[in-house]
Amino acid sequence: MSNPEQTGRRGGRAARTAIRQAPIPEDKRVIRPGMEGGRFKALTDAEVERIHRAALDVLENIGLADAIPSCIDLVVNAGGTLTDEGRLLFPRALIEDTVANAARNFPLYAQDPKYDLEPWGQKVHFGTAGAAVHIYEPDTNEYRESTLEDLYNIGRIVQEMDNIHFFQRSVVPRDIPDPADMDLNTCYAAVKSTTKHVGTSMVHPDHVTEALEMLHVIAGGEDKWRARPFVSQSNCFVVPPMKFAEDASAALEVAVRGGMPVLLLAAGQAGATSPAALAGAVMQEVAEVLAGLVYVNLLVPGHPAIFGTWPFVSDLRTGAMSGGSGEQALLSAACAQMANFYDLCGGIPAGMTDAKTPDAQHGYEKGYTETLLAHSGANLIYESAGMQGSLLGFSMEALVIDNDMIGGILRTVRGIEVTEDSLSIETLRDVCTNGPGHYLGHEQTLERMESEYVYPVIGDRKSPKEWVEAGSEHIMDAAKRRVREIIDGKHPSHITPEIDAKIRANHNILMDENIFVAVA
Amino acid sequence: MSNPEQTGRRGGRAARTAIRQAPIPEDKRVIRPGMEGGRFKALTDAEVERIHRAALDVLENIGLADAIPSCIDLVVNAGGTLTDEGRLLFPRALIEDTVANAARNFPLYAQDPKYDLEPWGQKVHFGTAGAAVHIYEPDTNEYRESTLEDLYNIGRIVQEMDNIHFFQRSVVPRDIPDPADMDLNTCYAAVKSTTKHVGTSMVHPDHVTEALEMLHVIAGGEDKWRARPFVSQSNCFVVPPMKFAEDASAALEVAVRGGMPVLLLAAGQAGATSPAALAGAVMQEVAEVLAGLVYVNLLVPGHPAIFGTWPFVSDLRTGAMSGGSGEQALLSAACAQMANFYDLCGGIPAGMTDAKTPDAQHGYEKGYTETLLAHSGANLIYESAGMQGSLLGFSMEALVIDNDMIGGILRTVRGIEVTEDSLSIETLRDVCTNGPGHYLGHEQTLERMESEYVYPVIGDRKSPKEWVEAGSEHIMDAAKRRVREIIDGKHPSHITPEIDAKIRANHNILMDENIFVAVA
Repeated sequence: MSNPEQTGRRGGRAARTAIRQAPIPEDKRVIRPGMEGGRFKALTDAEVERIHRAALDVLENIGLADAIPSCIDLVVNAGGTLTDEGRLLFPRALIEDTVANAARNFPLYAQDPKYDLEPWGQKVHFGTAGAAVHIYEPDTNEYRESTLEDLYNIGRIVQEMDNIHFFQRSVVPRDIPDPADMDLNTCYAAVKSTTKHVGTSMVHPDHVTEALEMLHVIAGGEDKWRARPFVSQSNCFVVPPMKFAEDASAALEVAVRGGMPVLLLAAGQAGATSPAALAGAVMQEVAEVLAGLVYVNLLVPGHPAIFGTWPFVSDLRTGAMSGGSGEQALLSAACAQMANFYDLCGGIPAGMTDAKTPDAQHGYEKGYTETLLAHSGANLIYESAGMQGSLLGFSMEALVIDNDMIGGILRTVRGIEVTEDSLSIETLRDVCTNGPGHYLGHEQTLERMESEYVYPVIGDRKSPKEWVEAGSEHIMDAAKRRVREIIDGKHPSHITPEIDAKIRANHNILMDENIFVAVA
Repeated sequence: MSNPEQTGRRGGRAARTAIRQAPIPEDKRVIRPGMEGGRFKALTDAEVERIHRAALDVLENIGLADAIPSCIDLVVNAGGTLTDEGRLLFPRALIEDTVANAARNFPLYAQDPKYDLEPWGQKVHFGTAGAAVHIYEPDTNEYRESTLEDLYNIGRIVQEMDNIHFFQRSVVPRDIPDPADMDLNTCYAAVKSTTKHVGTSMVHPDHVTEALEMLHVIAGGEDKWRARPFVSQSNCFVVPPMKFAEDASAALEVAVRGGMPVLLLAAGQAGATSPAALAGAVMQEVAEVLAGLVYVNLLVPGHPAIFGTWPFVSDLRTGAMSGGSGEQALLSAACAQMANFYDLCGGIPAGMTDAKTPDAQHGYEKGYTETLLAHSGANLIYESAGMQGSLLGFSMEALVIDNDMIGGILRTVRGIEVTEDSLSIETLRDVCTNGPGHYLGHEQTLERMESEYVYPVIGDRKSPKEWVEAGSEHIMDAAKRRVREIIDGKHPSHITPEIDAKIRANHNILMDENIFVAVA
């Protein structure tokens, strides 16, 4: 099978370099969005089932407080009960029917269809998220308030990152005091910054209405928007433990009726707003999101809703949030299993390091939380890149560093192919009995070089000696260069000047038009 | 069940602080050596079986070259064949019988029995390893040559790290040019530095003989040494692909006959000395270590041998080793599954970052490789702390930083306990219907604070604001303080001055006696 005359051996480094220079077709890439996770199980099947039953029990017997009248009407008409204490109870059958009939296998669209996502089964995608109020400035080692321009630039960086598959807004524009202006401009800047799927938050129903008007213009009409809604709403409909949020509920209703996919986000913090016992924290997350799912499906049956169990952790010594612990990794991973159990689109956070700079702690906390969540088969991994300081800060340099990390993690999600060819018995025989005693120049090695191996963009693989000779550069320096390159580079042009003018005529856009002028 | 009168609520932070001040009994610790992995499977059962069959095929039909005469005699007498080309073939039945009868469930002893390890089943332990020739100096951002004193100090740090369970020598003492002196002094300094299990390397049979003489003295006699051998030999008996190493083979024989557990270390580098196809790289590792296992068991049936599949990766653009890739994580994880398949003690590396300083790349590469290896159920995870630059460098600061990372990973290995109590239905009911609407001061929270949560030693959980106010300290500064504290602190005293004098009288100990004088 492997005869040296037939296979030939092309010389080492020159041949390898030649191969590296050829561009890799998209379908031949080693890693892609939507590879299948599911090889890690934090919970046994019996434990998943038990958490599910406990959540049903809690919804049926304890329920949620503070539902708005329209929500109460919907749920009571569907068989629910409002207790004398004002808690809305959800009967088991209503939950089960909702899970059975809820939307599953729905795409998340992008302005550019090549970035459409298929977040179902155990397909894994990585993206940003967050509501950080600070940006880390590497040159001064300080945090400053984040701005609308930062948000726009972050989206532009996301656009260039192969392993960041969607852009949920990461920072709050602290230069816009008015909440309505803030929500609208956040949506505007995000959608202008990238052609990948955008997620954003709108804290009041009127803000959703206005955003939808703008999005119809960008899409070229409401029908086109409804056919391919490319923005999802991150909606904190619940105030854990087990209370509905009034404005968010009303905003949810507008989004759902307006055809906007919603991320049903329950963010209990274990030990503070959800049980300190991890199983209980997962259970409460599941109960809350199931309540939201009922609400959405009573509003518009089959509306696309992301199962947004976002379990957070308290450092119980202080009560403050801690995003990078082993407990966090377990909570997120277990929530992914719960979403898989329901066969619903699971959108779950990981990568919320407590570190304040892209240091070793940053890396390992993101590394273990994101790895376990990806291998649990989470469909959408939020907060995965750029976040710092337990979600309070954002670093653009971290975003490009984290992109490499996610590349490595995605490589592990792809797994090991075991075939007659990959087992390499004949290659081994060839090398050991006919060959030079090593695999470096072997045909198989050259073939596998681009089909089996991922290479980092920023990550440094120099030896210590080469590294010292090259100036002992810190990874931050490489990251800063890459960030600068993107920010100083070409601006996206998918929204035409005509559409932009139309938006600006009808909405209070606070971002300078000139910032969008392409320099390249 | 949960009545506020009965349960009571102790006030928040004061009560939590009081609890934190009480020492935690060892058996109540949240994380411990030897927790059970195995929730991650890089390979399916069928793939494991197929790799096994391919390895048997290779051993039976291609075999290994360069066996020494004593090895050839043993294997040929047991049914093996030496081909005309000098390759030693291992029949399938010989391998299968060896696996059936090999030592399993053997402890790795420590000088202090409280550090004895039970590395079997899917119990996970973390330790160091390596043969780095450089130490990273954080103050100058440079690498310098490693010394015997460094090795001793690294062991002293390991002794203080709760999550580093054994000390395999990490650096080569470059200040000792003679190989015999180097091996002996390495063993001496390691055993003096810590009471945890020690692993070390001896490149020549005479070095093993001398080391055993010294170890008998330390143990208090050969019988005591043989009853509790507290040093294992890391033995590179194979030069991949599929060749025995002459001196290492001879050293292996002395170690095995001397009652020293051996780590059968095959370190093929995918794309260079093992196939670039990952499945083939795993298969070759397995074949080589199985050959070593036969050799050991023909020497002394049932001798403790660690299944040391150490798969490395080449960056195929340059041919250089790369230790931190996703491919590396997969190879190591798959090898752990193979060891589990044979029910043998699997000793496998992870944490071999390509980063040159404890930066984000350092963290994430260690994070994902070690997480997946731990969850694969590797019994001994080598190289897990302190290594840098693809094994060429070592950082003492990284060692204390990595200890925190391993704490987080071990927390994920412990998993989520799902019980009636941890599901927290009654706690939730209490908080939502009787209580303050949060869990912060709840009895359950106080109980779980020390039983369910791990707190970092060096890792920083301050908010960005607090962090800036406290001086924007880099994690390296905290790590440097901790390293300094240990090095300037008390020296270990488990080897008495009398024993030490006896060793010095008979061996060329090159380490200044005064260095061991306790300052505290």
